[in-house]
Amino acid sequence: MEYNGKFRTDLASEAHRLALNGRQDLAALPGVETAEEQREDCSLFRVHITDQRGAEALGKPQGRYCTLEAERFRPRGDPRFRAQAETLADEIRELLPPGGGPYLTAGLGNEAVTPDALGPLAARSILATRHLKRSGDPLFADFSEVAVFAPGVLGSSGIEAALQLGVLARELQPSCLLVIDALAGAEAGRLCRTVQITDSGIAPGSGVGNDRAPLSRESLSLPVVALGVPTVIDAAYLGGDSMKGMFVTPKEIDEAVRCAARLIGYAVNLALQPKLSFDDLAELLD
Amino acid sequence: MEYNGKFRTDLASEAHRLALNGRQDLAALPGVETAEEQREDCSLFRVHITDQRGAEALGKPQGRYCTLEAERFRPRGDPRFRAQAETLADEIRELLPPGGGPYLTAGLGNEAVTPDALGPLAARSILATRHLKRSGDPLFADFSEVAVFAPGVLGSSGIEAALQLGVLARELQPSCLLVIDALAGAEAGRLCRTVQITDSGIAPGSGVGNDRAPLSRESLSLPVVALGVPTVIDAAYLGGDSMKGMFVTPKEIDEAVRCAARLIGYAVNLALQPKLSFDDLAELLD
Amino acid sequence: MEYNGKFRTDLASEAHRLALNGRQDLAALPGVETAEEQREDCSLFRVHITDQRGAEALGKPQGRYCTLEAERFRPRGDPRFRAQAETLADEIRELLPPGGGPYLTAGLGNEAVTPDALGPLAARSILATRHLKRSGDPLFADFSEVAVFAPGVLGSSGIEAALQLGVLARELQPSCLLVIDALAGAEAGRLCRTVQITDSGIAPGSGVGNDRAPLSRESLSLPVVALGVPTVIDAAYLGGDSMKGMFVTPKEIDEAVRCAARLIGYAVNLALQPKLSFDDLAELLD
Amino acid sequence: MEYNGKFRTDLASEAHRLALNGRQDLAALPGVETAEEQREDCSLFRVHITDQRGAEALGKPQGRYCTLEAERFRPRGDPRFRAQAETLADEIRELLPPGGGPYLTAGLGNEAVTPDALGPLAARSILATRHLKRSGDPLFADFSEVAVFAPGVLGSSGIEAALQLGVLARELQPSCLLVIDALAGAEAGRLCRTVQITDSGIAPGSGVGNDRAPLSRESLSLPVVALGVPTVIDAAYLGGDSMKGMFVTPKEIDEAVRCAARLIGYAVNLALQPKLSFDDLAELLD
Repeated sequence: MEYNGKFRTDLASEAHRLALNGRQDLAALPGVETAEEQREDCSLFRVHITDQRGAEALGKPQGRYCTLEAERFRPRGDPRFRAQAETLADEIRELLPPGGGPYLTAGLGNEAVTPDALGPLAARSILATRHLKRSGDPLFADFSEVAVFAPGVLGSSGIEAALQLGVLARELQPSCLLVIDALAGAEAGRLCRTVQITDSGIAPGSGVGNDRAPLSRESLSLPVVALGVPTVIDAAYLGGDSMKGMFVTPKEIDEAVRCAARLIGYAVNLALQPKLSFDDLAELLD
Repeated sequence: MEYNGKFRTDLASEAHRLALNGRQDLAALPGVETAEEQREDCSLFRVHITDQRGAEALGKPQGRYCTLEAERFRPRGDPRFRAQAETLADEIRELLPPGGGPYLTAGLGNEAVTPDALGPLAARSILATRHLKRSGDPLFADFSEVAVFAPGVLGSSGIEAALQLGVLARELQPSCLLVIDALAGAEAGRLCRTVQITDSGIAPGSGVGNDRAPLSRESLSLPVVALGVPTVIDAAYLGGDSMKGMFVTPKEIDEAVRCAARLIGYAVNLALQPKLSFDDLAELLD
Repeated sequence: MEYNGKFRTDLASEAHRLALNGRQDLAALPGVETAEEQREDCSLFRVHITDQRGAEALGKPQGRYCTLEAERFRPRGDPRFRAQAETLADEIRELLPPGGGPYLTAGLGNEAVTPDALGPLAARSILATRHLKRSGDPLFADFSEVAVFAPGVLGSSGIEAALQLGVLARELQPSCLLVIDALAGAEAGRLCRTVQITDSGIAPGSGVGNDRAPLSRESLSLPVVALGVPTVIDAAYLGGDSMKGMFVTPKEIDEAVRCAARLIGYAVNLALQPKLSFDDLAELLD
Repeated sequence: MEYNGKFRTDLASEAHRLALNGRQDLAALPGVETAEEQREDCSLFRVHITDQRGAEALGKPQGRYCTLEAERFRPRGDPRFRAQAETLADEIRELLPPGGGPYLTAGLGNEAVTPDALGPLAARSILATRHLKRSGDPLFADFSEVAVFAPGVLGSSGIEAALQLGVLARELQPSCLLVIDALAGAEAGRLCRTVQITDSGIAPGSGVGNDRAPLSRESLSLPVVALGVPTVIDAAYLGGDSMKGMFVTPKEIDEAVRCAARLIGYAVNLALQPKLSFDDLAELLD
């Protein structure tokens, strides 16, 4: 039973549910392994696309995908924020190459369009340490070297994000690129309360905006970890042609995107800076 | 044939189309008079709800409603912007009480939520002249007296917009209140390219956000002109309960709302300040 | 030795130092009582202007002024932030009338001009509870009733902030008005690291912007507590006429104003909501 | 008579006045040629530093510097805006290499700090056409190829602006780099109403912020045109050590920087896109 393409979703977990089409018969999806885990403050759903059959069934590249799902994302003072950030950090660490940094992180998307602002907003919560480390100041000896980039929007820059990241990666030679991007989902009830982490990069045409060239280990010749949150559903899937150019989004999208971006920012910092505790971060990040 | 309530729309023109339900037999709607007019750069559709039967058929209070529909709203440098602003200004003037100001204008809604930001953004384009007129400086003798108010969001202030406007109107004693607000519509294709002007005020529960107490000649004891643009469709009307708390909105919502807000701001200034030309305004407004 | 007017400062503590003119002979200032207190994370300097002689000597209305001075203001995750917020809350409570709320809080100034944005930014951190209390929901029984108002800028509204606050206070009948405003200081080294709390209101012509009508117990017929932070020095005091229309401000003004506004917001909440702990607030406020 | 270093200014015209120290005896400055020109809506002052003696006298690299000075900068609807934009465009064209683009433009500085926001704000008014040209669509055949980059702040990215521009320039191979940056000046009365255009690039340590590595024909191996507006004076030059870390800036800095950024944006577009008229631009730019 192959993915019928009716709904586009950037989430492997949703693509998996859609491909199953209501059946519980997992054997029906060769090349796809899944696992579920319940935590106190969130649940995790892992999809491992192990071969080309699985890739075709789910309409996604091979690789590991983990979806963290919360009841909803919380302000940083909420104890659940901390628990979720630490869970997410553990999942990121799983996908990082051994040996530490330097790391290049990138927030994709358009900060002026709320559902597409996840990447740039998350980038603001990531500690840029590259220049501090390179200053030689022993104060920063325990930090990993992290650079933070937000390439902005093709319509404003005229330069594709993938091109900008490519030349920067060639110069900085990071051990890994982490990209953060808003996603399109298929299930209204899961918008803005789900994070996907994957080592398969960003697929062409995914994301909320239009400038999404592929970013992957293959295209960039370095490991790529992609983090995303579904913030919209393409309304054309619901209402047909009359809904072209529209999207469906939660009414509380502004606060939801801000909370999600901060959660991802904290998680990335915890994963990349093993010497920093959550409390250290809360002092450093406003 | 009464309005079946399946779709909620704040636009009388859409409610009229829905009530007709595809029939062209206008005699079927007693208490409703309509007229259509084609201009070079936009079209106008007028709905006059003349009695209670019409009000029930369309689910709207009695009064005059005029809908200006454009292909899309334009940046201010586009010649069509000027033509549309002047057409809109004419329609506003039709609804103003004779005798000039003082005027109180109000931009309702939440500036932090793009589809609800129309009112506060439009308020920024309205020239506040009350303090200048009252300074006695002869430079401002030809200006009408205009005050501009943006009451903000109930969740942030704890004070209902209608209460704030009521006490301010009692103090300032304007000849007319003009309110600007984002609307919910029913037709995806007309979102963000339509302005409604009405003398029936703001109905309870309309608008994009939740704090929409009635604002009308009856509730405030003064004439009220309401201007609005449909920026969202309640997604529950499309997708049922699974879409509760979601809305449908155009992908280009940010630019569309900015252009619409500026168009309304210019039109309000042209209507309230008869001594100012479009070119004067373009010099005064950034 | 009277205040010579060469420097204008909105801070009583600075006016006191200027009036002393380097002398330590406190008997020289009749009608002025002072006290100093060292805390772990900040210091407090109290000035009590007890009669008209003191008012003339310092160029300030009679009343109690307390200045909290910190090395610098901190992000909210820093333990010193908590200590300073609680100290400030204690000082606010000292000036509140007995018997609890309802309270009206107001953030004065221009959010678009960084050194004048303190008031509107602080207002965003104050919990608006008036509508929740009045909903009758027992969940909010333990909260005090607080309304939050940001009157905006005279040039944009045409309505003086004092007029707006006056009509709102007549309607809401609060037990006390709390106003927050950016101040002009005289000492560069103390900009953006000092908070003044006073029961003497806002004096005419103080603040950073131009629309500062008096707000006091006399003008409004209700107790007024004013909180402010010096963010600028009028450059004309340093450079003479060539510096007219200029101000001196710290390079890091953006972050400093944000931190100060949040500190004041937390302190106001702690003072007005005695049932809420600092940790409760950190969960509620983003 | 050499520049004594007491005042730091990024403007060659001010450095020239300071070096003359009140004398009118131009022969006293070997290696420096100057010329003044009065236009209807602004004046131009040209400084040509022709050799090393001139560079030492003015504390600036050799090259051509032109300062456009206006009474003040205007909103775009003001006829003087158009005249000044066209004058500025002429001066930019003088410094461009023959043969047209592709061009790389860059807005330096920190958008969150008003006096440092000139570059990023101006970048928003520059038409990015690189992706349109490269799409092959004949609609864009008459446009020059322009890419627009805003490298952001070192503290947020960890990557020096000069490094980012260097790798991007190697990839895009522009015929010329145009950089826009806020400047520090020496004369309060000229802040925010002066634009400097130079072919000498950005000197190390100039600008308002701290991350100003040199950007010049020598460092980048391509022609560099730098545009800047003085928005601050370092307060330490006025008040000594007590003013360290402070700057002097006009009270109306927000509006002034916005107007200046838009003026530069329009002028850059007019210079780089010879087929576009001012009216065309006004339709395209919001």
